[in-house]
Amino acid sequence: MAEFPFHLDGVDGAARTGRLVTPRGVIRTPAFMPVGTAATVKGLLVDQVRETGADIILGNTYHLMLRPTAERVKRLGGLHRFMRWDGPILTDSGGFQVFSLAGLRTMKEEGVTFRSHLDGSKHHLSPERSIEIQADLLGSDIVMQLDECTPHPATHDQAATSLRLSARWGVRSKAAFGDRETQALFGIVQGSTYPDLRRESAERLLETGFDGYAIGGLAVGEGRAAMLETIEATEPLLPRNRPRYLMGVGKPIDLVEAVARGVDMFDCVLPTRSGRHGQAWSDKGPINLKNARFQEDDTPLDPSLACPASSQYAKAYLHHLVRAEELLGQVLLSWHNVAYYQDLMARMRGAIAAGTFGEFARIFRAGLRES
Amino acid sequence: MAEFPFHLDGVDGAARTGRLVTPRGVIRTPAFMPVGTAATVKGLLVDQVRETGADIILGNTYHLMLRPTAERVKRLGGLHRFMRWDGPILTDSGGFQVFSLAGLRTMKEEGVTFRSHLDGSKHHLSPERSIEIQADLLGSDIVMQLDECTPHPATHDQAATSLRLSARWGVRSKAAFGDRETQALFGIVQGSTYPDLRRESAERLLETGFDGYAIGGLAVGEGRAAMLETIEATEPLLPRNRPRYLMGVGKPIDLVEAVARGVDMFDCVLPTRSGRHGQAWSDKGPINLKNARFQEDDTPLDPSLACPASSQYAKAYLHHLVRAEELLGQVLLSWHNVAYYQDLMARMRGAIAAGTFGEFARIFRAGLRES
Repeated sequence: MAEFPFHLDGVDGAARTGRLVTPRGVIRTPAFMPVGTAATVKGLLVDQVRETGADIILGNTYHLMLRPTAERVKRLGGLHRFMRWDGPILTDSGGFQVFSLAGLRTMKEEGVTFRSHLDGSKHHLSPERSIEIQADLLGSDIVMQLDECTPHPATHDQAATSLRLSARWGVRSKAAFGDRETQALFGIVQGSTYPDLRRESAERLLETGFDGYAIGGLAVGEGRAAMLETIEATEPLLPRNRPRYLMGVGKPIDLVEAVARGVDMFDCVLPTRSGRHGQAWSDKGPINLKNARFQEDDTPLDPSLACPASSQYAKAYLHHLVRAEELLGQVLLSWHNVAYYQDLMARMRGAIAAGTFGEFARIFRAGLRES
Repeated sequence: MAEFPFHLDGVDGAARTGRLVTPRGVIRTPAFMPVGTAATVKGLLVDQVRETGADIILGNTYHLMLRPTAERVKRLGGLHRFMRWDGPILTDSGGFQVFSLAGLRTMKEEGVTFRSHLDGSKHHLSPERSIEIQADLLGSDIVMQLDECTPHPATHDQAATSLRLSARWGVRSKAAFGDRETQALFGIVQGSTYPDLRRESAERLLETGFDGYAIGGLAVGEGRAAMLETIEATEPLLPRNRPRYLMGVGKPIDLVEAVARGVDMFDCVLPTRSGRHGQAWSDKGPINLKNARFQEDDTPLDPSLACPASSQYAKAYLHHLVRAEELLGQVLLSWHNVAYYQDLMARMRGAIAAGTFGEFARIFRAGLRES
């Protein structure tokens, strides 16, 4: 494996700030990865994404393998060239979406067979096929092992059976990944909310050995308290010198709480999804631009941000665009939200480096509107 | 009236190229005005619109008076500030949309009462109210008189009655407009496809005296041949030293044919509407990006254009975005189309200045795909 250098530049309590060095660029951590599901961060040009300060974006194997197909992306020069993003890309394994297809999939030890939500066509995903798609066809920089995202709630037995399958798939993923100089492979800790199972999962992954470790199976309905407890139980099991990635999380407060517990990387569709639905994120929580109180509010969303969507457009104008269901409203709010998330990560990195992260988190929690 | 200076820099047959000088900037003619119906050129940032070379955009009085309301735009600093476009804006009178509201409107000599398509609320538009909305509340640079867009087909009697109402409204519009130093008022020639009525309309408008003259009531179903004949019949009636604006037109070939017949200004929703529906315009006609033949086409839409949407993205990627119904596909194709239209106008201006417009038009006609 590539074993991308990971420099820890600062530690403050459990919170860490550092740099993961990849051939396509440095990822400053804690990092938030905007999600580019179908080879596009929804509504945004890659230059706009880049301008927000994002070092890395995420691509979804499930969506891309179905359309335009991984083989076609390969023939067109790989995912970076296809979508014109020249920075690092992390791809998920496809497992999360496939396991969400209740009734349309058949699970076996070897892998999972499923039907496309687009046209009902039959497809197969195994640890080996996922690696092939991510590493060989899409050309991802950070490849995720195929795992089973254990549903919530799960009994101890169910969660144990599930994590063991994921662990075996982790071994097969690593074998399929082999020696690659310019790409990295991350393993995924499962085990639901059971600390003993999280330990078992982490120990098995460490035996296999990965370039980074994701915490999977959270933000699936267990609630914030259980999520944070599980992160707390898992974090000490993970090697200090490798990045830790909390998958699919989350709201700004979730990022702050998870960073406080030692997480380095995040991804979530929330900034762009909220943007398409008229919501702007802020330190005080989400702002619903559709609300009539903004109809003559001449102030911008956040004058401190360089992003034009944040600092150059009046809320009254954004309100109008949302009410009129104008495309530009979706674009501007998505752009602001991605910029806000990146700024939040930058502020957290700064606070950790300065040794003031505890105070930062305290102020952040206190500043949230009651909701 | 402001009587914006209009410099004719070149004439080639009936085609003209020049500069209309406004306090907010010079409009190079022949000019195409992208349509910003609801205070946004759909899907595009104003910087993107500006980068395509657009000197002026159009705003719709009907849409803006209903939402966010002209009074609110005024309180927020006027339309330019509201939407962050600092160049010239031409607004229509609202009449065209109101007269499209069959069954929802009551016409009188004084003006027209109608119900909003948004919420059924009752509104009134008269020549005086339209001027107030455009000039005082929105702060438009080029204001259009309220007219009745004569429907097609119309009998000679119907068309005569209609144009005379528009002519009387033109007189009232000019009186309401009064003396303004930084804004201009255009009259609108009606008369359906009857040359004698076009003459009567033009003569009445010239008696009143306007800063520019629009040709209205075309592109409403009469067909291209009748449209071009009517332009040919109308153009000699209009003063050489004032700009002529063909409202609501059109496809690229329509622009070429109308420029060949002496038209200086155009507006149309087609570039952005086509873009939202997966179509890209070219000298060969519209390209339907949804077509499977583009699924592995690695070439850009038009490498000669500076617009990133035209020259930096492969058709295969645009095809994918259109198929996946991604917002970014709508944005990129709208952007390309606006850029293509602006480039077409620039090429026409260049050909007229060089005295080669006849050849340009011949090649353009010949280059169109059979369709």
